Amino acid sequence: MKKEKVSNAVIRRLPRYYRRLTELLNAGTVRISSKSLGESMNLTASQIRQDLSYFGEFGQQGYGYNVESLRNEIAEILGMNQGHTAALLGVGNLGRALMENFHFDQSGFRLTAAFDVDPAVVGHEIAGIKIRPIEELDEYLKQNPTSVGILTVPRAVAPSLSEKLIEGGIKGIWNFTNIELNITTPGIIVENVHFSDSLLALSYLISEAI
Amino acid sequence: MKKEKVSNAVIRRLPRYYRRLTELLNAGTVRISSKSLGESMNLTASQIRQDLSYFGEFGQQGYGYNVESLRNEIAEILGMNQGHTAALLGVGNLGRALMENFHFDQSGFRLTAAFDVDPAVVGHEIAGIKIRPIEELDEYLKQNPTSVGILTVPRAVAPSLSEKLIEGGIKGIWNFTNIELNITTPGIIVENVHFSDSLLALSYLISEAI
Repeated sequence: MKKEKVSNAVIRRLPRYYRRLTELLNAGTVRISSKSLGESMNLTASQIRQDLSYFGEFGQQGYGYNVESLRNEIAEILGMNQGHTAALLGVGNLGRALMENFHFDQSGFRLTAAFDVDPAVVGHEIAGIKIRPIEELDEYLKQNPTSVGILTVPRAVAPSLSEKLIEGGIKGIWNFTNIELNITTPGIIVENVHFSDSLLALSYLISEAI
Repeated sequence: MKKEKVSNAVIRRLPRYYRRLTELLNAGTVRISSKSLGESMNLTASQIRQDLSYFGEFGQQGYGYNVESLRNEIAEILGMNQGHTAALLGVGNLGRALMENFHFDQSGFRLTAAFDVDPAVVGHEIAGIKIRPIEELDEYLKQNPTSVGILTVPRAVAPSLSEKLIEGGIKGIWNFTNIELNITTPGIIVENVHFSDSLLALSYLISEAI
């Protein structure tokens, strides 16, 4: 696989391919042309072929793609079979929403631990996971190497907790706090879910559409 | 303002500019060069100048940008002063998290109503907003024209509820359900927050970084 020069735009489309192919597979579709796949995703056939060409040869002239095998290949590319684990910090409403409603397994992750500061929450169990006191984070990460830390904490504590996560050997941070984390450690990936940026983009687009 | 050919990438950067300028303003910064602004955002000075050139003339050769006035201009471009309103559908964990913790006003929105099907929730008040039964949605939208509908409902009901929102005159949908809404009505904007796409992108990047 030649992953070197994959642009951010392509990386952002890979999960959409995976999601669409999963829908097709669940609907019983066996094969699909790049044209049909593109039409259902607002992409051109050539864009799809070009995106996939970064990762190897897929599909067959005149036949198209086998839905299941393309889906499996993309899962592999996305690292979904690497046994990634995640620890969640901050069991407020949003943390709880992720624990109870988000299907980590469908993204190839296992949520393995959750931490909070609130004594009213610590010790309780949500979705089969016992909430630990935040003081145990360092020791936990030492004992249980973890791929990703999820930040659903108040923004004020996000920088110090992200440092703790990095010291604990985490590879990536899924950041739901509305700040940019200034991570200087090489190789650490930060993926932001900025609700306000999303709503502001929507604001722009509906204002423009008037 | 010439908004016609603004690319999606530029639209996605506008909220980041706004956020960064707000931080600078709060820190007491009066003016900033495109170079410094760029460095703090991992962008080049010329990219910033080019992005802003879509919307008019900002800043001054040798002086840079006045932080407060550039922030105000971007707020205007983003439609933050248009009095947008939002109605939230689905007061589960995620809906509740948005109602209690998300600062709609900081994005120029007012959350004006919330709806749910659960009798245990309907009638209660969260963050000063009374939860209404979903049956009242049509009538509510007729009486209270609303800019945006927020979907924090189970995916199965997302398509039918988005139709109701569109019939009710909504301009945009902020979609937190993990499905693509196939909206055919022209002019309706759908902004997706796909948690799984975000986590899969992170999965890709940490797998790549290994």
